[in-house]
Amino acid sequence: MAIGRSGIVTLTTDFGTVDGYAGALRGAVLAAGRGATVVDVTHDVPARAVREGAFALRTAAPSFPPGTVHLAVVDPGVGSSRRLLVVVDHGNQRILVAPDNGVLSYLLDDASVFDAHAIDPSRFAAVSRTFHGRDVLGPTAGRIAAGADPSEFGPPAGEVIRLPPYREPVGKREGRILRADRFGNLVTTLQSVGGDAVVEVGGIQVRRRVGCYAELPVGEVGWCVGSLGLIEVAVRDGSAAERLGVREDAAVRLT
Amino acid sequence: MAIGRSGIVTLTTDFGTVDGYAGALRGAVLAAGRGATVVDVTHDVPARAVREGAFALRTAAPSFPPGTVHLAVVDPGVGSSRRLLVVVDHGNQRILVAPDNGVLSYLLDDASVFDAHAIDPSRFAAVSRTFHGRDVLGPTAGRIAAGADPSEFGPPAGEVIRLPPYREPVGKREGRILRADRFGNLVTTLQSVGGDAVVEVGGIQVRRRVGCYAELPVGEVGWCVGSLGLIEVAVRDGSAAERLGVREDAAVRLT
Amino acid sequence: MAIGRSGIVTLTTDFGTVDGYAGALRGAVLAAGRGATVVDVTHDVPARAVREGAFALRTAAPSFPPGTVHLAVVDPGVGSSRRLLVVVDHGNQRILVAPDNGVLSYLLDDASVFDAHAIDPSRFAAVSRTFHGRDVLGPTAGRIAAGADPSEFGPPAGEVIRLPPYREPVGKREGRILRADRFGNLVTTLQSVGGDAVVEVGGIQVRRRVGCYAELPVGEVGWCVGSLGLIEVAVRDGSAAERLGVREDAAVRLT
Repeated sequence: MAIGRSGIVTLTTDFGTVDGYAGALRGAVLAAGRGATVVDVTHDVPARAVREGAFALRTAAPSFPPGTVHLAVVDPGVGSSRRLLVVVDHGNQRILVAPDNGVLSYLLDDASVFDAHAIDPSRFAAVSRTFHGRDVLGPTAGRIAAGADPSEFGPPAGEVIRLPPYREPVGKREGRILRADRFGNLVTTLQSVGGDAVVEVGGIQVRRRVGCYAELPVGEVGWCVGSLGLIEVAVRDGSAAERLGVREDAAVRLT
Repeated sequence: MAIGRSGIVTLTTDFGTVDGYAGALRGAVLAAGRGATVVDVTHDVPARAVREGAFALRTAAPSFPPGTVHLAVVDPGVGSSRRLLVVVDHGNQRILVAPDNGVLSYLLDDASVFDAHAIDPSRFAAVSRTFHGRDVLGPTAGRIAAGADPSEFGPPAGEVIRLPPYREPVGKREGRILRADRFGNLVTTLQSVGGDAVVEVGGIQVRRRVGCYAELPVGEVGWCVGSLGLIEVAVRDGSAAERLGVREDAAVRLT
Repeated sequence: MAIGRSGIVTLTTDFGTVDGYAGALRGAVLAAGRGATVVDVTHDVPARAVREGAFALRTAAPSFPPGTVHLAVVDPGVGSSRRLLVVVDHGNQRILVAPDNGVLSYLLDDASVFDAHAIDPSRFAAVSRTFHGRDVLGPTAGRIAAGADPSEFGPPAGEVIRLPPYREPVGKREGRILRADRFGNLVTTLQSVGGDAVVEVGGIQVRRRVGCYAELPVGEVGWCVGSLGLIEVAVRDGSAAERLGVREDAAVRLT
């Protein structure tokens, strides 16, 4: 069954905002998809950080209306033989456009079934070797937002590259820190099993479970189920990442 | 009298731009208000800095067309009992959506009369405890931009939380530094009384009054009436905040 | 011949994103040009850095559809006698709005013929002395996007201020570093002459020519023709600017 179109194209890149590259990408989408609505997720993914890009996409994409095109350009392999993908997630009614390097992985973790196509760059005019976002991926996203069929852009892709899942299965009690966010909250890969479990991370046992950060006394550490449905460790009005001295991939255990 | 709608929703948050939270908020507005135009004021309000958020809103909101919805999510109390507000400023034809923590305060300083409603979160599906921007405030702003009546979202709010006014009354000669901006300009809370007053701040008497920064010789300090109608102290091609060694809330006097 | 309108207005400023100034500018454009689509190039041009603004504009503008209005507000001379311009680039079908200080220069390097008008600020209501972006340039861009004739805003401007060209003529073998971008890539002013030339910069001879960065072994330095058609020196997954210890304006030679 075909997916409708919201006309929205979201952008997730590591281009930063000091240069004009993000502007060039926005222009390329708008030139190919007249009347599209271009909306940033972020351009501040750390340079070449595929995983952080995947996390930002997972955080933002589910809020958008069905039929939205999500374009991700974190592309350390630009110009190499790495593939460019269009992926249709039928269940969530999303269309994803990105290099085949794992940046879509966390969204695909939530997709029960999807179709991936490998974009054939030879179908685009004047393709540079260093800026496929502007020359191929942006125009692809713009055309799809305007109604083009995702399968027009190239043949079925077969297997696509995946990262380790962003979320452990329900009931699993050992995981890792997925992300330390801007507020210093430590997002884990674990889902809550109910009850008053203790969260162990960085050698510290976090015992205080709260419904939200504001229930913590100022400066106290606790844990809650965050906006992604994952267990998060937080310090009220402070940084749990700094307080506990842990970083991404640190081991986490529920006891 | 009802206010028309421009279809525009502005966003002022402390979410930063590295994570996907700002993207999630944009998506929530667009999903609830199809066809809305989402426009950033800023997502770089320092984390939990209500006052800086209020200042950014005051700087930007008056430039937007009548009937614009201004959504502010600087929300250190998320999930607590702090209220969520919809405020209708009839005179300025603005609709404001934000937590009840003072972030709307500087806009309300300019409102002769306004109606405030306390949003009832139970009217929204699937509300997390940690991201009311995405789950309640964004959808509220989107629906209002699409035409919903602000009074639909909950009962009259009564008194709302206010900060000290951003502006002293005309003729008052003692105030404080409201904001040191990106250029190092020191925006004061004082309005000009005309004549050649001296501005005293940080133990220094600033005597040179200019019409604009460019009238100052390079590196010289002076004062002018800035774009908010407030007295500002500036250094040409430099930072007055650094030169004078003063920060926000420093005392200022006109002599 | 008149240029059509895409309805898009791009923004390139040094306002940063912490204050509400960029928001105020977006509002001013939307208030004057109802239904316009406002798209950022960047607000993170370093403060008062005309040349970096010119580079960001040159990077982004060519990707936008014909009939787009490009608004640049990097304006250290605000309030002085410096002029405000509307420039129509007929060949590229772009309309440019900016102070007359060189910020349009790199776009004009690519324009075979253009008409410039000097905006008469007295045609605008309530013009502050410190924020012509909000009070004059934004409204001008908005009105033009909505169909106003660029010549309505003031008389022909005659000569406009230009920077040294961003690009040496084809065949020239001596140039300079134009820009070190976010990835540390060194964009030069030189065009490739074909063959296996060596790029000399910072006392180092860069011999390895590649088609794209990904062809370099990790950590190796090489050069390629970048997305602007200019020779760039890059380090795979690293910063050429740091490795070679060179900055903008460093001499570059093809040998």
